[in-house]
Amino acid sequence: MRARCRMLRKALLHSVSIPSSCALLGPNLPDIWVSFLPLLRAKPNGHNAAILGGKLIAQDIKLKVAEEIGRMKNGIGKIPKLALVLVGDRKDSQTFIHNKLKACDQVGIETLVAQLPENCAEKELIDVVTGFNKDPTIHGIIVQLPLPQHLDEEYIMSSVSPEKDVDGFHPHNMGNLAMRGRKPLFIPCAPKGCIEMLLRHGVEIKGKRAVVIGRSKIGGLPTSLLFQRHHATVSMVHAFTKNPEQITSEADILVADVGMANIVRGNWLKQGAIVIDMGTNQVKINDEIYDQRSQGFQITGDVCYEEAIKVASALTPVPGGMGPVTIAMLLSNTLDSAKYAFGLV
Amino acid sequence: MRARCRMLRKALLHSVSIPSSCALLGPNLPDIWVSFLPLLRAKPNGHNAAILGGKLIAQDIKLKVAEEIGRMKNGIGKIPKLALVLVGDRKDSQTFIHNKLKACDQVGIETLVAQLPENCAEKELIDVVTGFNKDPTIHGIIVQLPLPQHLDEEYIMSSVSPEKDVDGFHPHNMGNLAMRGRKPLFIPCAPKGCIEMLLRHGVEIKGKRAVVIGRSKIGGLPTSLLFQRHHATVSMVHAFTKNPEQITSEADILVADVGMANIVRGNWLKQGAIVIDMGTNQVKINDEIYDQRSQGFQITGDVCYEEAIKVASALTPVPGGMGPVTIAMLLSNTLDSAKYAFGLV
Repeated sequence: MRARCRMLRKALLHSVSIPSSCALLGPNLPDIWVSFLPLLRAKPNGHNAAILGGKLIAQDIKLKVAEEIGRMKNGIGKIPKLALVLVGDRKDSQTFIHNKLKACDQVGIETLVAQLPENCAEKELIDVVTGFNKDPTIHGIIVQLPLPQHLDEEYIMSSVSPEKDVDGFHPHNMGNLAMRGRKPLFIPCAPKGCIEMLLRHGVEIKGKRAVVIGRSKIGGLPTSLLFQRHHATVSMVHAFTKNPEQITSEADILVADVGMANIVRGNWLKQGAIVIDMGTNQVKINDEIYDQRSQGFQITGDVCYEEAIKVASALTPVPGGMGPVTIAMLLSNTLDSAKYAFGLV
Repeated sequence: MRARCRMLRKALLHSVSIPSSCALLGPNLPDIWVSFLPLLRAKPNGHNAAILGGKLIAQDIKLKVAEEIGRMKNGIGKIPKLALVLVGDRKDSQTFIHNKLKACDQVGIETLVAQLPENCAEKELIDVVTGFNKDPTIHGIIVQLPLPQHLDEEYIMSSVSPEKDVDGFHPHNMGNLAMRGRKPLFIPCAPKGCIEMLLRHGVEIKGKRAVVIGRSKIGGLPTSLLFQRHHATVSMVHAFTKNPEQITSEADILVADVGMANIVRGNWLKQGAIVIDMGTNQVKINDEIYDQRSQGFQITGDVCYEEAIKVASALTPVPGGMGPVTIAMLLSNTLDSAKYAFGLV
């Protein structure tokens, strides 16, 4: 692993400068967050929005996680371990699991995958999770969503021990995120990455109008709660909102977590808004630009990029924006969990 | 107790008509809420707002709770029991405890008060709560807030068992309130009362613009989460919000939970808005209208009543609005808890 860390560090040091005062790990709540110099300052590119790329930030987080794991291994001879549970054979879930495994491997987090058949009984799945809960060598547990219809997702997610809930979806962690003055053990990765992205680009959140479109437990809901903790004035827009574009056009910071390609149009945005696109939508591309590699599909966000770039002051691309940062935050959460378990925090 | 129930029932039946289809108890989440005919239809009074009084609603809830407790006692020979913990000798806290005890007595809920000195040690308080947690005859525990500065409020509130957390402040219950598809054991009383108030007056919540001013765990925060569950489009306004009146003036439903007398002025409101005032502020009154009974003080809300009544379509008064309904919801939560404990739900 040391060789891998060295290679990663070498690669990263050539691509990004890291301020020495960064305090990346741990929950990024404003009351316990150590501020740092902006890593990347958003720069207008002609009349277009600055692009808030996530790859360099993800690399920097990975480097820091890898360094900490290296020190952990040298100091106490132990490393973090993440257990991933995959039910069925959805291609997108397999891809997500593959990407997480790859990222873990890059930073030296040990992994274990439990693969269950599509038609597995609920008890079978609960038994797997319970076993991981009891295993002291495992520090994080992820149950890949969505689960097949016959399984009770809420019940299963609640069966993950809050101390190993590196996805941050357990109600105990969500409640502690919602309530000011409290500290959740883990914050969901996409919202944590969203705040990281903004802070690193020098965006002030306190007092800003933030509008979050979508209210999933993975993205929109915890993002709204975390913005609240950072003292933004938050509005939530969803399927029952009348005239959503009226509310979104008041947003200094807009977060889209809808799951529908290009739903957020240019005229939904305030001039100069900062736009965070959490969407990852697979869309069929025109036959004329079909190429073998893409198999006729491309990944696009919830925000109509071509229109938004002319209105926003800064914008995350899809792919290459929130995706890499979100996975990096999973690594950070898993490291945190191991640190709690080893008594290092 | 039967005599008391009879008296209460008699008193109430003379003052309010109760639709037979009401399903008042249990958490009022939209996905499990049984709709009922509006009990009281808001009526414009000349050009002024309709007054959304809470006393009759509270009486109706109390009647239903008393009836259920009567049946419980007859059926299984048991009744709900609420333990209240009071630290120090704050006059306002003593008044709140007194009002809760009186309401419990009216409906037949047994009570127990643990009074600890202002300078009590944290361990002493935790031991009391832990004792109540273990006592199977106790179904609800309330720790009266605020606590003296030297005590860790978050730690103490987390020590209350989620199964007896009739205030709904435990992170586990708050997390389950935040997350759609989940059912908290208890919803905080003021937000639950707020939804009850709106539904009983025939106000549709889904799709409405709701603005909540203040984000305390008692009022604003859980109200925003509960509005979200009812599919309102929710915005939160707080101390760091710039131009709060701009956002509040877009609200179809405005909830004030600030704790500052008359801070919400008439020009903060949209014409025809529905205004729920959760504030309870003690203000000194003019010497000219001083009378012995009020001791020179009066209770007023967060909303400037005289101005709001000319703009809003409906408005809760203070006193006599949310206060009685909030206490009634505590009784409802305590009954629910006993029903869970006795296996009646």
